[in-house]
Amino acid sequence: MKLVLVAGATETAAIDGISAAGAAPELMAHTPAADAELVAYGEPVFAPFVPVSPDGCPTPAMVTRAVRECVDFAFVVADAGMAARTAVPAIRLGDRPGGDIREAAPVPNARALFDRAKAVGASLPDDELLLAESVPGGTTTALGVLRALGEPHGVSSSLPENPVSLKEEVVAEGMAESGIEPGGLADDPIAAVRELGDPTLAATAGLLAGARSRGARVTLAGGTQQVAAAAVARRLGVDGEFEIATTSFVAADETVAIREAAADLGVTLHVTDPGFQPGEHVATDHYLAGVAKEGVGMGGALWYAEREGVPMERIRARLFERYTALVGDDGP
Amino acid sequence: MKLVLVAGATETAAIDGISAAGAAPELMAHTPAADAELVAYGEPVFAPFVPVSPDGCPTPAMVTRAVRECVDFAFVVADAGMAARTAVPAIRLGDRPGGDIREAAPVPNARALFDRAKAVGASLPDDELLLAESVPGGTTTALGVLRALGEPHGVSSSLPENPVSLKEEVVAEGMAESGIEPGGLADDPIAAVRELGDPTLAATAGLLAGARSRGARVTLAGGTQQVAAAAVARRLGVDGEFEIATTSFVAADETVAIREAAADLGVTLHVTDPGFQPGEHVATDHYLAGVAKEGVGMGGALWYAEREGVPMERIRARLFERYTALVGDDGP
Repeated sequence: MKLVLVAGATETAAIDGISAAGAAPELMAHTPAADAELVAYGEPVFAPFVPVSPDGCPTPAMVTRAVRECVDFAFVVADAGMAARTAVPAIRLGDRPGGDIREAAPVPNARALFDRAKAVGASLPDDELLLAESVPGGTTTALGVLRALGEPHGVSSSLPENPVSLKEEVVAEGMAESGIEPGGLADDPIAAVRELGDPTLAATAGLLAGARSRGARVTLAGGTQQVAAAAVARRLGVDGEFEIATTSFVAADETVAIREAAADLGVTLHVTDPGFQPGEHVATDHYLAGVAKEGVGMGGALWYAEREGVPMERIRARLFERYTALVGDDGP
Repeated sequence: MKLVLVAGATETAAIDGISAAGAAPELMAHTPAADAELVAYGEPVFAPFVPVSPDGCPTPAMVTRAVRECVDFAFVVADAGMAARTAVPAIRLGDRPGGDIREAAPVPNARALFDRAKAVGASLPDDELLLAESVPGGTTTALGVLRALGEPHGVSSSLPENPVSLKEEVVAEGMAESGIEPGGLADDPIAAVRELGDPTLAATAGLLAGARSRGARVTLAGGTQQVAAAAVARRLGVDGEFEIATTSFVAADETVAIREAAADLGVTLHVTDPGFQPGEHVATDHYLAGVAKEGVGMGGALWYAEREGVPMERIRARLFERYTALVGDDGP
């Protein structure tokens, strides 16, 4: 199994209140790079920090890394347009972050991203791929694409109080700017990404399409962003079997209703509960309170660990060790 | 074992008569990307062509790929400043090709390249690295660095008639432009790369320094460019054991005298003969005539195959199959 982290950026993340993935815009630029380095090397190499919220919630990349220390898997980045340099091997699909979806055509290269990703998906030698994501602001762009496609599904948040109405407002503004009605791009999913999405959605859909074309098993690891990527792929004619693997924290989010979304899209859903215990550790208490929830392949990695028979307590122990090494015993 | 292909570009390659790695300058830009894709995927993905000379001499990447089909090893690119996009996972160390060494400071980021590469070399999890290169024009920049350092060693060529005097002329012009006497940068190897080198030399020396700092086994796979990288590393204080692995075609080149160079630098040298037979195949006859000789880790891959007990005839058979699939039975 190879985990492909589709990493990118969107200026939409800079809108006040949209994202918890990094405290400040200038730090958010480094979050996907730092996430990738955590999974690959266990610590930052080029990135200037470990993504941990001011009150101690670690990036889900730390969970994915903890899994990888228990059961090895191959790991690579697909760079859909990152805003900062990473020390992790990356397949460069794009060249620039996506723009703010309140402006016209924030992802002008959506078609090229999809095509390149499809060629790569068709060329990779792996029988099984897990496609993960790291893009601050990604649930808002996912919502934009779902609305442009006319999909009814809701989206999750890395914040405990999901700023749904802010996201809907931003998306409505973006649709107005691009002159698009809800569902108006149902037949043109590439245009939906170009006008309301972010670069990772085009790249993920392309990798999926390419890998499925050669019969590989593909699982989208993540929450609502993967619902959006799956919807794009289905409307581009990617038929047949593929899967979504997510965490119990996304599955518990009623705003999302990911079980219904997966059923609608004809996608098998795997939900894995890491068994975090209340009061056990500052790192996991935040997740129990609804912070972060998913990302950087956390749900997919946990599901892979479960398939490989790794007990969740081993993963939690590894996570706490890593947290202590990188952040300290009691948080920042 | 992981083979790291340090790939890059130098505008020096565009000087008429310098390089055989690609027929025309606009094609040479794609040669390292195409080389990487051959080794990773067995065929070009983003690259618009297979690097084969007009009269049918294949890139040494095809040999490295043939080895990889016989005995698997991990493979990644270190992008020191490539001129074209590749579909292969790459650690992005640089951002731009090197300039023409006849102008001042063709590698202004030599220090940053070395530092980033050193951090990556120290972070990679592999116990053994083979560092290979692909940079058209690279033997001329290698000569430039050797002269700036005051090393007496000669350099090889991908052309059967090594344009030694042209290379010496280009290097002399570059040294005059930068106001440097032969040996004038003996104590400042980073400056030698900045003024007379190409981006891959800084990256290779950095990867070597970083990987050796954590005790990994490191072999520079290649010919004279690796002699230059080794000289840079030694002068930067990289003591102790490391190796060079090259082909019998480089070892047979009297202009190079690679055995003496390796001995001077205190580096163990491995020479592997792929056992090409005269008249057996158009692909290998060119090598017997002194074309190409080495590159893209060919000598290192052959040495690895030998260590793993893979018979050379199996590699030749694979090479001929790949040549037929990519080029045709009798060449282009």
